[in-house]
Amino acid sequence: MWKENSTARSRKSEKEAVPKAVVLRWGHRPSRDARLTTHVALAARALGASGLILSDVEDQKIKETVDEVTQFWGGTFFFEMGIPWRKAVSDWKTKNGTVVHLTAYGENVETSDVLHRIEASGKSVLVIVGSQKVPAEFFSEAVSDFNVAIGNQPHSECAGLAVFLDRFFRGKELARSFQSWKVSIVPQRRGKRIVKKKNRDIGFFRKEI
Amino acid sequence: MWKENSTARSRKSEKEAVPKAVVLRWGHRPSRDARLTTHVALAARALGASGLILSDVEDQKIKETVDEVTQFWGGTFFFEMGIPWRKAVSDWKTKNGTVVHLTAYGENVETSDVLHRIEASGKSVLVIVGSQKVPAEFFSEAVSDFNVAIGNQPHSECAGLAVFLDRFFRGKELARSFQSWKVSIVPQRRGKRIVKKKNRDIGFFRKEI
Repeated sequence: MWKENSTARSRKSEKEAVPKAVVLRWGHRPSRDARLTTHVALAARALGASGLILSDVEDQKIKETVDEVTQFWGGTFFFEMGIPWRKAVSDWKTKNGTVVHLTAYGENVETSDVLHRIEASGKSVLVIVGSQKVPAEFFSEAVSDFNVAIGNQPHSECAGLAVFLDRFFRGKELARSFQSWKVSIVPQRRGKRIVKKKNRDIGFFRKEI
Repeated sequence: MWKENSTARSRKSEKEAVPKAVVLRWGHRPSRDARLTTHVALAARALGASGLILSDVEDQKIKETVDEVTQFWGGTFFFEMGIPWRKAVSDWKTKNGTVVHLTAYGENVETSDVLHRIEASGKSVLVIVGSQKVPAEFFSEAVSDFNVAIGNQPHSECAGLAVFLDRFFRGKELARSFQSWKVSIVPQRRGKRIVKKKNRDIGFFRKEI
């Protein structure tokens, strides 16, 4: 009879456990960052994150936009706001999650083994993305378990988050189906094809993002 | 003596040729899209594109920001603007390039073989990203050779572009070095480390993006 050894068991359990990702958006300024934060949230949803925490401030308009997208296009993406970032981080750590701070100063996701170490932890990740210069504290062990650079060049937190999630989920997030959709796209080589759920007054999502 | 057959030759030349990517940003509205277009341009640069064409309109402020980043952080990224999109596309096709239109309606980059087909063409790509609803014509053969979806969910052109470039360049773009930099980041597990070129009055790039 074949018996699993501990390594095989450990591999199996790693395989079975599907680590999740939640995004923490820090430093949002409602007047200035509205559109970018919306893009960050929708990218998070489309690229497999379970939800986004808009820390320290509230922005009802963005919440409405993101929740409407989820309502129309499906899935269970959550959008929380107003939670102090320290509390969000400590809650996450209490639940045995790991914290990844995305920063151009961190370990390069391509040239270092940082992603491998994150994966090896087997933990779900809280991904911190700033929208302005972050407190030095974010780089410390008290906050981040990993400081990760999507390349060491200045660019966009939205772009960085997207690449991080795509690599973290190994691309599989783009093949996921979103449950309970009212509207869904059928991929086409040319043109647009949308399917709408019948027998429902779905209105139509026309808001420009 | 071993002789290359035509397949081997073709594979070899595909390997030797390094296809390039240039981004065409369509539909930019200076008042509304300034920050997002800046993010798109900087993401394009950081993720290996050779340059960005801001079609149909001019936006001197964005050009200055992007050119300043290139001047400080290195590389040869170009930022052109005001070129009519039809001209940009036809010029690209005349130079035997292929045109990729990023759209949530297109072929899913994860579940279809579209990226493989783009790679197999061996051609450099012009990647069209819209910032508002694009003309139906963009989906036609007259414009796009491929309509590619970074997942079939609505999200962000900045995020979509980032994932496309990361996959197109197979991640290697994040390991590239940028030549002639004045300022460069040395990746760290914790904290920030910047190297500045000596004996140059470099000022310092402090602009918030």
